[in-house]
Amino acid sequence: MSQIRGRFSKAADKRAAEFTASIHSDWRLYSHDIAGSIAHARMLGKQGIITGQEAETIIKALTDIREEIEQGKLEFKPELEDIHMSIEARLLEKVGEVGGKLHTARSRNDQVALDLRLFTKEAISGALSSLRELQQALVTKAGASIDVVIPGYTHLQRAQPVLLAHHLLAYFEMLQRDKERFNDCFKRTDVLPLGSGALAGVAYEIDRDSVAKELGFSRVSPNSIDAVSDRDFLLEYEAAASLCMMHLSRLAEEIILWSSEEFGFIELDDAYATGSSIMPQKKNPDTAELIRGKTGRVYGQLMALLTTMKALPLAYNRDIQEDKEGFFDIVDTLLSSLKVFTGMITTLKVKTENTRKATEQGYVLATDIADYLVKKGEPFRTAHDIVARLIGYAAEKEKTFTQLELTEYQRFSPLFDNNVYSITVESSVAARNNAGGTAPQRVTEALSRAKKMLGGSTDGN
Amino acid sequence: MSQIRGRFSKAADKRAAEFTASIHSDWRLYSHDIAGSIAHARMLGKQGIITGQEAETIIKALTDIREEIEQGKLEFKPELEDIHMSIEARLLEKVGEVGGKLHTARSRNDQVALDLRLFTKEAISGALSSLRELQQALVTKAGASIDVVIPGYTHLQRAQPVLLAHHLLAYFEMLQRDKERFNDCFKRTDVLPLGSGALAGVAYEIDRDSVAKELGFSRVSPNSIDAVSDRDFLLEYEAAASLCMMHLSRLAEEIILWSSEEFGFIELDDAYATGSSIMPQKKNPDTAELIRGKTGRVYGQLMALLTTMKALPLAYNRDIQEDKEGFFDIVDTLLSSLKVFTGMITTLKVKTENTRKATEQGYVLATDIADYLVKKGEPFRTAHDIVARLIGYAAEKEKTFTQLELTEYQRFSPLFDNNVYSITVESSVAARNNAGGTAPQRVTEALSRAKKMLGGSTDGN
Amino acid sequence: MSQIRGRFSKAADKRAAEFTASIHSDWRLYSHDIAGSIAHARMLGKQGIITGQEAETIIKALTDIREEIEQGKLEFKPELEDIHMSIEARLLEKVGEVGGKLHTARSRNDQVALDLRLFTKEAISGALSSLRELQQALVTKAGASIDVVIPGYTHLQRAQPVLLAHHLLAYFEMLQRDKERFNDCFKRTDVLPLGSGALAGVAYEIDRDSVAKELGFSRVSPNSIDAVSDRDFLLEYEAAASLCMMHLSRLAEEIILWSSEEFGFIELDDAYATGSSIMPQKKNPDTAELIRGKTGRVYGQLMALLTTMKALPLAYNRDIQEDKEGFFDIVDTLLSSLKVFTGMITTLKVKTENTRKATEQGYVLATDIADYLVKKGEPFRTAHDIVARLIGYAAEKEKTFTQLELTEYQRFSPLFDNNVYSITVESSVAARNNAGGTAPQRVTEALSRAKKMLGGSTDGN
Amino acid sequence: MSQIRGRFSKAADKRAAEFTASIHSDWRLYSHDIAGSIAHARMLGKQGIITGQEAETIIKALTDIREEIEQGKLEFKPELEDIHMSIEARLLEKVGEVGGKLHTARSRNDQVALDLRLFTKEAISGALSSLRELQQALVTKAGASIDVVIPGYTHLQRAQPVLLAHHLLAYFEMLQRDKERFNDCFKRTDVLPLGSGALAGVAYEIDRDSVAKELGFSRVSPNSIDAVSDRDFLLEYEAAASLCMMHLSRLAEEIILWSSEEFGFIELDDAYATGSSIMPQKKNPDTAELIRGKTGRVYGQLMALLTTMKALPLAYNRDIQEDKEGFFDIVDTLLSSLKVFTGMITTLKVKTENTRKATEQGYVLATDIADYLVKKGEPFRTAHDIVARLIGYAAEKEKTFTQLELTEYQRFSPLFDNNVYSITVESSVAARNNAGGTAPQRVTEALSRAKKMLGGSTDGN
Repeated sequence: MSQIRGRFSKAADKRAAEFTASIHSDWRLYSHDIAGSIAHARMLGKQGIITGQEAETIIKALTDIREEIEQGKLEFKPELEDIHMSIEARLLEKVGEVGGKLHTARSRNDQVALDLRLFTKEAISGALSSLRELQQALVTKAGASIDVVIPGYTHLQRAQPVLLAHHLLAYFEMLQRDKERFNDCFKRTDVLPLGSGALAGVAYEIDRDSVAKELGFSRVSPNSIDAVSDRDFLLEYEAAASLCMMHLSRLAEEIILWSSEEFGFIELDDAYATGSSIMPQKKNPDTAELIRGKTGRVYGQLMALLTTMKALPLAYNRDIQEDKEGFFDIVDTLLSSLKVFTGMITTLKVKTENTRKATEQGYVLATDIADYLVKKGEPFRTAHDIVARLIGYAAEKEKTFTQLELTEYQRFSPLFDNNVYSITVESSVAARNNAGGTAPQRVTEALSRAKKMLGGSTDGN
Repeated sequence: MSQIRGRFSKAADKRAAEFTASIHSDWRLYSHDIAGSIAHARMLGKQGIITGQEAETIIKALTDIREEIEQGKLEFKPELEDIHMSIEARLLEKVGEVGGKLHTARSRNDQVALDLRLFTKEAISGALSSLRELQQALVTKAGASIDVVIPGYTHLQRAQPVLLAHHLLAYFEMLQRDKERFNDCFKRTDVLPLGSGALAGVAYEIDRDSVAKELGFSRVSPNSIDAVSDRDFLLEYEAAASLCMMHLSRLAEEIILWSSEEFGFIELDDAYATGSSIMPQKKNPDTAELIRGKTGRVYGQLMALLTTMKALPLAYNRDIQEDKEGFFDIVDTLLSSLKVFTGMITTLKVKTENTRKATEQGYVLATDIADYLVKKGEPFRTAHDIVARLIGYAAEKEKTFTQLELTEYQRFSPLFDNNVYSITVESSVAARNNAGGTAPQRVTEALSRAKKMLGGSTDGN
Repeated sequence: MSQIRGRFSKAADKRAAEFTASIHSDWRLYSHDIAGSIAHARMLGKQGIITGQEAETIIKALTDIREEIEQGKLEFKPELEDIHMSIEARLLEKVGEVGGKLHTARSRNDQVALDLRLFTKEAISGALSSLRELQQALVTKAGASIDVVIPGYTHLQRAQPVLLAHHLLAYFEMLQRDKERFNDCFKRTDVLPLGSGALAGVAYEIDRDSVAKELGFSRVSPNSIDAVSDRDFLLEYEAAASLCMMHLSRLAEEIILWSSEEFGFIELDDAYATGSSIMPQKKNPDTAELIRGKTGRVYGQLMALLTTMKALPLAYNRDIQEDKEGFFDIVDTLLSSLKVFTGMITTLKVKTENTRKATEQGYVLATDIADYLVKKGEPFRTAHDIVARLIGYAAEKEKTFTQLELTEYQRFSPLFDNNVYSITVESSVAARNNAGGTAPQRVTEALSRAKKMLGGSTDGN
Repeated sequence: MSQIRGRFSKAADKRAAEFTASIHSDWRLYSHDIAGSIAHARMLGKQGIITGQEAETIIKALTDIREEIEQGKLEFKPELEDIHMSIEARLLEKVGEVGGKLHTARSRNDQVALDLRLFTKEAISGALSSLRELQQALVTKAGASIDVVIPGYTHLQRAQPVLLAHHLLAYFEMLQRDKERFNDCFKRTDVLPLGSGALAGVAYEIDRDSVAKELGFSRVSPNSIDAVSDRDFLLEYEAAASLCMMHLSRLAEEIILWSSEEFGFIELDDAYATGSSIMPQKKNPDTAELIRGKTGRVYGQLMALLTTMKALPLAYNRDIQEDKEGFFDIVDTLLSSLKVFTGMITTLKVKTENTRKATEQGYVLATDIADYLVKKGEPFRTAHDIVARLIGYAAEKEKTFTQLELTEYQRFSPLFDNNVYSITVESSVAARNNAGGTAPQRVTEALSRAKKMLGGSTDGN
């Protein structure tokens, strides 16, 4: 800030200066900022806007500054406001007045936009590879439990038996969509904003394409005003992360339910559970709870940036500086949640005696009995009503389906015969043998397809 | 609901029944529900799950019911809970027991998911074509004002002169990204969920591909549990709509600013302004204000659904019923906002005498004077400081740049010569002649490109 | 709107007119609008701003219009934009030009603010009495189950035994805070804005105090600009409703868990559950699920209005019109959720054999055993570690605490003696006998206090 | 955490441990935690639960630890998870096994709740005094500009002249409501949770009242399960802060508008503005923009915690740990925004030549002319129409009201006479002489009242 107060007769109020500073969070952009500056300086030199010698001096110094930062040798001063000013100030210290030429044909507005896009592209890659790892963990766990049947639930009521592997692969599909969304976001992030100046473009014969090439962007931004005002790529990442956290929160909820004494379907590894300060018997699924809780955090950051961007006139307004902290927080939260979740899934143990028991209790085969009647000619709605009455009777008698006599069945429909006893959990699962269904054959195919999707590509997703 | 209380000994509490009913909003799905049922019935017939005759009877009746609804002849009763039950009840009235066969190999869970996906695909098409119309209006207005220069702003301070056309095309770019996002969302919406049953798949030999084909889906869902639990496609639409409304809110803010007496850059057509109940002189930009205000509404609905979906265990839970009202509201709000905005842009008048005056006042050419010094060898940072001091001096003397004597310029730098007077608004704009810049040549190219993008495609986007 | 286009040469664009109209939602303010207008007319007459005769004519006509509306005889036309214009237009039809005098010394801005405050005061009363009813239901259910012990949970793991009544009274406390918040909101709602005009006050010798008195406001607004711009009272209601829904969502979650086969603690009355379209055995806690789901809806509406109000310059802007739909939706959602919840609580049955079983399994008495050691001199942290190891041993041997031999206990600490066997669920509960604790004596006292809080006051809360 | 893994056979996964740790943010509670522990230890001693000597040893050590922390001598280790464990671990280091007695009759659940309530009470006091300072700055600025008239705006269109002081006092009223809300929140925060144990109360004869007294709480929590699960006080603070930020965002928007060249009503002090990296002429209202931007941040944190708390079963769940970071962020953002705003208001200069000019242009006296006709007997609606047509005529002739001939006035109504020329900005303002109006007399009274409100009370608000 000190550098840009030329016309001002007074220093910034100390509190105001602290208030407007962003160095406490945007230092994370140092390597992106330096990479961008190096590419910019090289281009300025090539285009003769500065001399080749000047360009080299600047590039050399920037390379040194990066090393200083990485070795913790450069202290960031709040009065230098942000990472861009901090690096530029250090550059001027090192090379003197020629450092002042780096900002030719560039503004902090297009510079910040550039740094953020470089960072976001990395953040997308990080999300993609972490998503892939979690998918891999799900596929592995599904493969290892291919013969485990659990009650499938709707309304948290036992509904129909399903393979646990089928259930886990539902999450595989969600994460697959998450990856698609991050990939789609990448397309719109992969655009070089540099060369847009403050908002109108720059009055120098720059070569934007060469900068784009050096920095790995596939195209340059087509409108300078848009380029410095646009934060869609952050919002799109944040929206994708919100959906992903929503998916994780659902699985986290199930992990928590399944870990309860009442369900008892799984046991978390000690490494992913914690104890109680007062109740020695507890084994709490804290990791899953925290992931569920952090969903709110990610939603909140999305809402924050949407609100901040609302109704801002073009082009850059200082409000936009608020984009970074929330975004960094989402990136960190998403990646750590995915990684921890991967470990938790990989190490959890399925308690198969309990899952088996749960499918055998109650009336989870009711749909199958209705279908049995339908196949004997009863319209589905009628069959549904018959089985509903049958269950009312059985519940009163405290009998399971297998404990009912054939004569008892026949009180409700003459279509019942001895074959009704061949309806089992296994037959139920096996019968759902269409694309997407829970029949073992289908799930095995789905597993193969999933493995292929994970294994084949070399682009990390 | 009445149909599915088989096992229950008591009617639903009246208040509870009203509370759980959704017919007040989901009647909008009637045509999608009927289309889905017809395709399902036809497939059941073909596969021999019901007879061809039964299928025909059902299809004929459903077609009639659609007509009854469209002619306002079918009264929806709250006690029938939702649109699916309402149509099925009417079907049973018309064809008797055979109507009960329609629900074979299907559940309300996959049926609702189907209806919503059909509706969403339409909603996406609607968004795409409305976005295209607004882009067209922007391009037309930009073309008609290609010679109008306005001050470009950052921090709502005049920064550098830009073409109004360039400014309008910034919004063209935003809307283009919006269209891309809706298209990306379409890919993930275009998946047939029917055949997933309640959650586990169905126990009949159905032909999902033929249903998908009849209904225009490009693929079938690969996991039944996911298919009935997934509302990503709604959330993704809502996130895309939120970003789009954010864009509209920014242009709305500018319309409001520009309509003020202080800016005076435009006059809205009477058709898009309203008067005051008490102040006869007022011409209020209500339409723009409402669009800006409705941004909050769309954000809120996004947040609502994200929150509702958080931490729901698989598969369907009744919470998910809350997806519809908010989604319908977003669709309606987005489409009407886009359409009204299109009319507002098309009919507004630019007050060129005011825009010209605004670019001539103040020191919007300061960057150009700094660049002038840079081109004479001054490092940018030094040049920036010189011009800052020069402006301090000029402001004190109450002189514009053109009113300063050369000797006054030279007090600040010996590099100034008579050429400094050739720096004008026109030269400033023309100088920003790189890709994405505001130079007339570049903007003309951008306009051509935009027209081509709008004109070429036949797929509506 | 037609009335206020005086200066405009063109009718509003039809689509724009529909877009800006609010009659579809603000008709709900008709009685508040008429009450306000009657009080205003009476005051104008008393002050001699209009004649007493004119005032009487207007008041008579307004009274008739209210009746027309209540009898469904007045059709609202969208072209009349809002409820205020609709009523005024009807007034002019009925009494001619003198009707035009009603708007003397008033603007739509202070009129709308008045109507909303009248409505909100009613909405607060509604919330207070519905909250009270739900508290009553909780107290009744708690009283009826005073001897039922359930496992208290943290992290959804069984932690320590608690009285179900104690658990239910936790919600009584939450709802008590909700009532306090609505009461606090009432203080700030109970302010007459009329007399603020468009924004600056009015140029007539009005008597605001008499209007306030007639309409039941305890004071008049002290700043006219604030009075027409302020929607804090709506936001405060919405925030209070959001917290209340959060509380309901927690109890709804527990209802859902407790209704599952796995927990089996309660059975919902048929009137508050629904069946499945495909699975005849299901009894779904739909009502509780919907309340849980609607929490997102209420949060979303709060976020919507907060966002809409953000950064609006003073005074009224049309964005603010968006306040009503979301607010009405929150009011309706909150009241219906509370009422349905009350019925659900009142009618649910506790399955005491299951709750008892749940407290007897596992190691919920572990804290008591640690406390036992502490009372014999062991520091708590050490006692905690001893019991942790003891449980590790018991779990491996598949023994409960009562099944362990004394010698086995003593392997972990010599402080154990035969008294350890007197630690029971009952002793555990009874021991927590401090203010706020779960000891039966304390819970009985808490029940009495709760009944007194509900019963005593005549102010509805 | 290390302390509470007793039963676990494996260390926590390193990544999981980092993921669940909260020491990076909750160290801020150190002084509250120590104060709470000291009060707890003292009470344990008095009650004979530990010996008086033990209590003294513990208290002495805790006092020393506080000093170590304040002098930066205690390093917080992530593996100790949180501030509570960090302090307890240090205590054990210092005093050995007796330190383990501190956790008698207490759980981390009631301990955390206590610390947060102590912190929140301080945060409320901070908000109250910062609000008061900003109110004082507004009152001072209003007093100093009592004779400045500005155009009052609705829809950002000039509506009627108002005193700038009246406008500033509108914000005084908003902040007054903010203070009331924080005070209301205080009542519900001022409750001691300690003694609730993990969730059920504690099995020792503790004296909660004496602890409450020592820590300055006015009452003890009446239900232990509620006490450990309740975060209403945080949410209520966050909601109050959100409304307050909304108010600040509105004033920030006006500061930004007024600082623009187009409005030119004020000049910010250099200390509260910043320059541009590229445009030397710029003086950007960054501070105001950032406050406007940070509104989104605060809303987002509110939404985050609401979402996190949704549908959590009782009692404590680890999700709740997410309460702290967002809350601390809101507290810091609110307080710094208020303080910076205070300085900005205090130092800004009103450019009275510009404000005067703005009230003289256009037709801001139109309402007064309509009122003039009304006072001569025209119904308001008719008068409104007459003036609307008059303005249409004047605008076409490019004349102001004062430039119109009397004969021109009379073309529109025979009621016009020479007195119409006595309608001036001054007469307009003076005429709004009712409670809450902008007449100088009323505003002077309002100022006195405001000063009295600020000056009189000794309770800091």
